[in-house]
Amino acid sequence: MSSISKIETWVTEPEQSDDGWATIKPFLFLKLTTSDGLEGWGEAFTLPSREKGIVEIIHNLIETISSSKDISPDIFNSKAKKIADGHGGIDFSAATSAIEMSLWDIEAKRKNKPLSHILSKDPKQKVSVYANTWSEKSPGCEILSKRATELLDKGYGGIKIYPLQNRTIEQAISCISILRENIGFEIPLMLDLASPEDPNIALKLASLVKEFKPYWFEEPIDGQSTRLLASIRKQTGLKIVTGEKQFGLQHFIETLAANAADILNPDIAGVGGIIDMIKISELSQKNNVTISPHCWNSMSIAASAMLHFCASNSNVEMAEIYPEYISNGLKYSDINFVIKDGFAELKDRPGLGVEIDIKSLMKLTSYHKQTKLR
Amino acid sequence: MSSISKIETWVTEPEQSDDGWATIKPFLFLKLTTSDGLEGWGEAFTLPSREKGIVEIIHNLIETISSSKDISPDIFNSKAKKIADGHGGIDFSAATSAIEMSLWDIEAKRKNKPLSHILSKDPKQKVSVYANTWSEKSPGCEILSKRATELLDKGYGGIKIYPLQNRTIEQAISCISILRENIGFEIPLMLDLASPEDPNIALKLASLVKEFKPYWFEEPIDGQSTRLLASIRKQTGLKIVTGEKQFGLQHFIETLAANAADILNPDIAGVGGIIDMIKISELSQKNNVTISPHCWNSMSIAASAMLHFCASNSNVEMAEIYPEYISNGLKYSDINFVIKDGFAELKDRPGLGVEIDIKSLMKLTSYHKQTKLR
Repeated sequence: MSSISKIETWVTEPEQSDDGWATIKPFLFLKLTTSDGLEGWGEAFTLPSREKGIVEIIHNLIETISSSKDISPDIFNSKAKKIADGHGGIDFSAATSAIEMSLWDIEAKRKNKPLSHILSKDPKQKVSVYANTWSEKSPGCEILSKRATELLDKGYGGIKIYPLQNRTIEQAISCISILRENIGFEIPLMLDLASPEDPNIALKLASLVKEFKPYWFEEPIDGQSTRLLASIRKQTGLKIVTGEKQFGLQHFIETLAANAADILNPDIAGVGGIIDMIKISELSQKNNVTISPHCWNSMSIAASAMLHFCASNSNVEMAEIYPEYISNGLKYSDINFVIKDGFAELKDRPGLGVEIDIKSLMKLTSYHKQTKLR
Repeated sequence: MSSISKIETWVTEPEQSDDGWATIKPFLFLKLTTSDGLEGWGEAFTLPSREKGIVEIIHNLIETISSSKDISPDIFNSKAKKIADGHGGIDFSAATSAIEMSLWDIEAKRKNKPLSHILSKDPKQKVSVYANTWSEKSPGCEILSKRATELLDKGYGGIKIYPLQNRTIEQAISCISILRENIGFEIPLMLDLASPEDPNIALKLASLVKEFKPYWFEEPIDGQSTRLLASIRKQTGLKIVTGEKQFGLQHFIETLAANAADILNPDIAGVGGIIDMIKISELSQKNNVTISPHCWNSMSIAASAMLHFCASNSNVEMAEIYPEYISNGLKYSDINFVIKDGFAELKDRPGLGVEIDIKSLMKLTSYHKQTKLR
């Protein structure tokens, strides 16, 4: 087997999306090169002031384990867990997610198969997707409603909104009413509450929103508050979604044991890796809980990893897409999927299947780091 | 008020302790300099492959908030929480712990008072301490027992051991029996199980160990497993200690709500900061749970911060000391406390009260980084 000979990371500059809808956050890409010349790409979930911290963890962690001649995703997963010794964090798990993702890319390229075919004998051809309408500009309701229609026309199967962003509960209800009038009641409409501190906000919104049949009720309170989540779930009867900010198996085991969720939405680039994602899905399935991965990452590497996982896993419902991140991704990569009729269809290519144009990526990069190993 | 004008961090090389007992882990020190010339020291909890990651988070986080002209510990705490937006991790909370610690040092120096006098109107003069006997060399039982006697002679009020390190349950019981024979039954003997994966190990050990009256039963399972901890607590009736690997208020709120602990042991340099430590102590007190801070850090900056917190807080019992880390600390600092008759007595000096000899520190440093701000 081969060893890792080179580690490269790129952190991109934030920029406005081409359509003016939102700011594109910085992304963190990883390329591992093996001693026999294969290249694997990964991506880490990023957070403000923490991108370079995650870069350092990636480089240092790979250096620590680089003496190993045969670093498969499984071996890496168990080595990383041993090194962490129970000390969790999204910075560390974003780093391990990126590393494991690139090791999966290498493994699948070595076998000349799409990643979904490595993860499953019989992967799905296409994956249900919904569009996230997040914008830090707090779009008004008419604009949001117009955006929703456009996104549905483009082929997304559902719409997620942030009803409480810059709105009172009453204004939120009015906005949801306008949206439902516009898109009808058949389309899944997901409400993301973005973790208000007071659980009564979720309870009040829930009591007023039921007639508009939201498909789910996301982060009605912080995901660490498993007891409150369970109580909100019981009181509202709405489908509770949680998990995007969390990491590590143990948190999800506790959440499932507390009956605190209907759907878990860990992020493929933040939860710790694809192996943990698969285990979380297995544990969820036993508890009649489904997975709908969060993906607040680029629509190139991380979205492709998410879609390969979704295509290979029987317990997944919808995957999350940031539509305005796609044209950004096209500046330095081909995008490995096509959105149509409510689904994302993955192209038939080895590994993650994403080609990155490094020259173009470098133009958008604020911080590039390279480590060569023996 | 003044702003931060310079950020400096030092990561030290690991080395053997002078007495050959154990390896000293790398430490991460932070010095902040204000525009009006005050200097504040902090220290971050460190973990393998993550030290430089924490360094980057420290520098980037301070740069992000450096536009603020008046960064008090409180303001920093609330800004950092806003930036994190619920995305937790020990890497991030180690960084915020170090920053907040140095801001407390600055604030107390500005008021020309020891930190304990800033945190409390009527701080204790001395703090109960126990000695941790951890060594990666898995010392045999006779050696461990001799060490325990020596440490008690030096003035530590209690002894913590790792009974399951390289021992079967039966061997552990035999070792504890030898120790009790040697030190008697009056001295608090703390058992740290270091999170075995199988809860049955803790249950079996507990049933056999009761006659030797352990003072507490630490990490009988991973601290994230609040339900299992609560069940072990109920079944064994032993005092359960947990929290050293955890961070953020929400985790401790969940642990308290689950009745999973008798004593919480967050680490002053890892939990997120002194403010969170105080809040965790307040919440614990309401639940009849005490605090006994973990301190797997240097015995210079972090230990001093821990002792100031302990002296100022009414819900604290013992503080943890690594005896072999003291002579290491003396290589680059004076140590701000004296161990005597079971207590650590803090010297009467402004701030944290630790002087660092930068030239000597630099000699032990593997990675130094400096950022000057406008």
